[in-house]
Amino acid sequence: MMKKKILFKEPIFKECANIRTYRPRQEVYAKGVERSVRLFSLKQEHNWSDAEFKLALKAINDEYSLALHNVMFVPALERLTTEQQKAKWLPLARNYQVVGTYAQTELGHGTYLQGLETTATYDATTEEFVLNTPKVTSIKWWPGSLGKSVNFAIIQATLIIDGKKYGMHPFLTQLRSLEDHKPLPGIGVGDIGPKLSMNHVDNGYLILNNVRIPRENMLMKNAQVSREGQFTSRGPSKGNYSAMILVRVEIVLWCFISLSNASTIAVRYSAIRRQSKLDSSQEESKILDYQTQQYKVFPCLATSYALFFISKTLRNRYTRIHAEMMKGNYKNLPEIHSQSAGMKALASEMTVEVMEVSRQACGGHGYLAASTLGDIVIGAKSLITVEGENTVLYLQVARYLMKRFAAAAGEEPLSGSTDYLNKDPNEYRCPLKSPRDCRNVGLLCEVYRFRAYVMIANAAKKLQRDIEAGKKQHVAMNDNLVQLVRAAKAHMMYCMIKDYNESMSQLQTSLPVANALHYLQVFFSVFNLIKNGGDFLETEAVGLSQMEWLKEVEVQMLAEIRPDAVSLVDAFDIHDDALGSVLGCYDGNVYERMLKSTENEPLNQSDVHYSYHQHLKPFLHKNNPSKL
Amino acid sequence: MMKKKILFKEPIFKECANIRTYRPRQEVYAKGVERSVRLFSLKQEHNWSDAEFKLALKAINDEYSLALHNVMFVPALERLTTEQQKAKWLPLARNYQVVGTYAQTELGHGTYLQGLETTATYDATTEEFVLNTPKVTSIKWWPGSLGKSVNFAIIQATLIIDGKKYGMHPFLTQLRSLEDHKPLPGIGVGDIGPKLSMNHVDNGYLILNNVRIPRENMLMKNAQVSREGQFTSRGPSKGNYSAMILVRVEIVLWCFISLSNASTIAVRYSAIRRQSKLDSSQEESKILDYQTQQYKVFPCLATSYALFFISKTLRNRYTRIHAEMMKGNYKNLPEIHSQSAGMKALASEMTVEVMEVSRQACGGHGYLAASTLGDIVIGAKSLITVEGENTVLYLQVARYLMKRFAAAAGEEPLSGSTDYLNKDPNEYRCPLKSPRDCRNVGLLCEVYRFRAYVMIANAAKKLQRDIEAGKKQHVAMNDNLVQLVRAAKAHMMYCMIKDYNESMSQLQTSLPVANALHYLQVFFSVFNLIKNGGDFLETEAVGLSQMEWLKEVEVQMLAEIRPDAVSLVDAFDIHDDALGSVLGCYDGNVYERMLKSTENEPLNQSDVHYSYHQHLKPFLHKNNPSKL
Repeated sequence: MMKKKILFKEPIFKECANIRTYRPRQEVYAKGVERSVRLFSLKQEHNWSDAEFKLALKAINDEYSLALHNVMFVPALERLTTEQQKAKWLPLARNYQVVGTYAQTELGHGTYLQGLETTATYDATTEEFVLNTPKVTSIKWWPGSLGKSVNFAIIQATLIIDGKKYGMHPFLTQLRSLEDHKPLPGIGVGDIGPKLSMNHVDNGYLILNNVRIPRENMLMKNAQVSREGQFTSRGPSKGNYSAMILVRVEIVLWCFISLSNASTIAVRYSAIRRQSKLDSSQEESKILDYQTQQYKVFPCLATSYALFFISKTLRNRYTRIHAEMMKGNYKNLPEIHSQSAGMKALASEMTVEVMEVSRQACGGHGYLAASTLGDIVIGAKSLITVEGENTVLYLQVARYLMKRFAAAAGEEPLSGSTDYLNKDPNEYRCPLKSPRDCRNVGLLCEVYRFRAYVMIANAAKKLQRDIEAGKKQHVAMNDNLVQLVRAAKAHMMYCMIKDYNESMSQLQTSLPVANALHYLQVFFSVFNLIKNGGDFLETEAVGLSQMEWLKEVEVQMLAEIRPDAVSLVDAFDIHDDALGSVLGCYDGNVYERMLKSTENEPLNQSDVHYSYHQHLKPFLHKNNPSKL
Repeated sequence: MMKKKILFKEPIFKECANIRTYRPRQEVYAKGVERSVRLFSLKQEHNWSDAEFKLALKAINDEYSLALHNVMFVPALERLTTEQQKAKWLPLARNYQVVGTYAQTELGHGTYLQGLETTATYDATTEEFVLNTPKVTSIKWWPGSLGKSVNFAIIQATLIIDGKKYGMHPFLTQLRSLEDHKPLPGIGVGDIGPKLSMNHVDNGYLILNNVRIPRENMLMKNAQVSREGQFTSRGPSKGNYSAMILVRVEIVLWCFISLSNASTIAVRYSAIRRQSKLDSSQEESKILDYQTQQYKVFPCLATSYALFFISKTLRNRYTRIHAEMMKGNYKNLPEIHSQSAGMKALASEMTVEVMEVSRQACGGHGYLAASTLGDIVIGAKSLITVEGENTVLYLQVARYLMKRFAAAAGEEPLSGSTDYLNKDPNEYRCPLKSPRDCRNVGLLCEVYRFRAYVMIANAAKKLQRDIEAGKKQHVAMNDNLVQLVRAAKAHMMYCMIKDYNESMSQLQTSLPVANALHYLQVFFSVFNLIKNGGDFLETEAVGLSQMEWLKEVEVQMLAEIRPDAVSLVDAFDIHDDALGSVLGCYDGNVYERMLKSTENEPLNQSDVHYSYHQHLKPFLHKNNPSKL
């Protein structure tokens, strides 16, 4: 609350999305820089903790240019440096004496890290690394804030000593002068051009041509190069993963933020808009009273709440395992790696899907830029491909599951998210014995678990059969990728439902609130089950009568959610200025705001547009309209 | 071929989408007007027939501002006028002496026509109609080309004579002076502001304040008002529907055009991009060789071809029924109304879904504006809500189906798309007896038909049960909307598969081409079946073993399509300039083109952006970076 008061009295944070639409790229970016600087200054001024700062960022929907400094640069410094490096660089970064980003992806390579082509060659004579992007495909491409904003970057490059390759390592590299911000010698840096959204961020490219950095700028927590060029590794460089995992955990939270914005707009507009008559003796009905509209808008609302609770559980799990890792205990790294990858993938996929349906539920008006709904959906689409493309992430989960499934046959019982692979699934076969059972989130969770088990087992068996039939390992793998992705999704969906239940069971609140949240939870579980009905029937996790009951419960939940829908979005407490939507403001004055918004359109600056005189008039007059 | 040669030698048609991204709205619109005028001039110069003109429009992806003149204004004039009116107005419109659009939707009302609030009150003393938009919600809103371009509009308004309402009728209204294009007295007109896409079109608003038009400007094919104010109707004004139906039929074709562009980009890029190694002894693999990539890209490719053939069948059906209607025979109006509504809804829904997955399959690069993939997807999204919002259209289909299902119990056998409701469905129960049957498009069509039958029957019975249990008709209806939409989709999906098969069975081509097209057809049928697997299992249209076979066939088809994939998109023969994508050009020079495209980015005009001096420098220097 405090944060919002501080932020939204400043004009730079009040500007609504509708106005931003009219700005050329140059100004969009400049406003993003201005916002960044004001945010950082407010943080210093009010001495905000990291947690408080995050609340402020959430209040303005993370719309500022230098986001990567906080999200990637500082956490990477924290995780990849020696104590000595930490002492030098962390204060500089935390006090904004330098601003940085993290540069890994290249024009020709993303998720496949071994394919990255940037090199850092050690020169023992000067005790420097020489950095190069040797080909067009090696050019660093995509890192946020890289193009124009930052003066430092942590660059992932293949280490070469005496012609021998030592894998990928992080190199802290100064890109621009601290005096005048000019690119340093050998560095070509710029913006990669407009994206579908988030054009206030200068995603950049980086060309390195014999750029020299001191030996000490290799971030050496996990591996060292001595003055003489001696390479020593402190075991597998697992620490590299931690920052990456953190961002994926964060993305689940960003999904919630997007969803809460989208559902606020869609629910509020649906409570104002009227169309046709449910009862012909009455006035036109609010569209939110139609079952079909509820069925399009409530999945977005329910997924908002679901991801709020799920992201909490995931975050707690990450914090616990990260602490272990900082102490050198990497036992749970594969588990959190797989969980964060899978949650990121499933959360972003679900988010975009339910938000888009909500946008469509606003009819044509949802297609107006002034609704901001479109921009929210398009913005969230980036989450599907950033920080690990979703299909690749699902396949990582699938490979983990195949290993765990094989291990389940061993002596030691499995723990963590895959513990259920220990058991005979028939122990928990189809627990839904009545329509009432279909409202029981515990039993529904068991249904998800059963389906996941069978799909994982089937995929493992199919793979095994193909190999036994003589297919090479890599051919068998490729021939089963689609099935493996399906199994991974089934597992992650079960994990989500389980984490949701866990988080909710700890919640202490009043009865009416608990009821409202419970309906959302049941709806979320049932909706996603029915959406994947084929899987559940095929695995015999449910039968035909159960599916019929579930469909009944699904529409019952719509009716249960309806009375609380507006309050449930009001509870997100999103400031009108942050929402910036003509359709979704708190006061419900939709149509007046829409008409008013046309005043901002440059085409309306004159009654007759200049193109009439240039193009249309000569053509029409040639065709002789005076005959009319 | 001819058209493309003529068009793409002109700079105005060569400009690629990548450049357009950088233009402010004013210029985007002005270029759209310039294109319109060149297109119309070329049509006159080369004496293009309507069919030839359509080919030209297709070649430039319909990107021009005055599209509504051809798509709505002229067809509406053809369909809604008396012979006398036709003789006067059609030559004027066809020779571009006047340019017009069609204005129906209002700020507060879209699909529910009875709710429209614009009025046309007859004044017998002057023999004029007086047009008004009495409230904010009555303002006409959305019509394309209305804001700045056209000087005429056909306005749908409620006719009032002597205080009595006579329903909605079309009124041809001059909006702007033919001399200087200034809005006429009483008319407020302008652009509604930017949309998610298609900002070269000036979708407009229109405020009418006692605007007077001559009595003769009411389009009187279906109803007349005499000088004295005597209203006569020539039966129900069914003719009004014809133009609306035509646009929906056209939309199915537009879906194909969008899909062909999107799949060209995604397939070509996937054949260039390499990532990871399928076989570790080989170089990195083309991503198109991964089963998961095929599974993301081929649905878009297959749906392109499917909608090409389906739209042909639909168009032929429309042409036949329209000819009947022009002769006063409206027997088949409900059938074509329902078919066009359902096809528009299902085609646009499928289009956006498969294109978005294809876009995601291009990873981060698919998120760049320069890829144009995003803009194609976002552009197609408008098709979901224009010309009848999809859910509303599905419900129209559902209501038609409920009527037909009831009629099937009667004496007269049903004909048209619902003829199968006559039969006992068990006659054609689960015809898939072997894995090989799952490649038989005829048998697959029967499976779709069975599922549709059961879902329609179940919805009808449920509705009946609810009413018998004492629910009011409108409550029972609302309580079953979700199920009714599902039934309508199942019916339309069956119609699509049937129309596809029909169109393909008439195709004469070489064996290799026929094979390639056959694989796509099987894949399309199987993919959509599996996607809705829950429905098919629930209705027992297939059983568990059939579903297993189908999943095998699905991945087999991916492998069959792979060798022809690039040729199949090359066959769309889309000009590089029309495609305008750095990822999808014919020559495959992806990375060079991407790097080159950054030269267009305004942020790259200087090494150091002005916002550094304004905002970043004062902040960083205050934090004292010299300490470094």
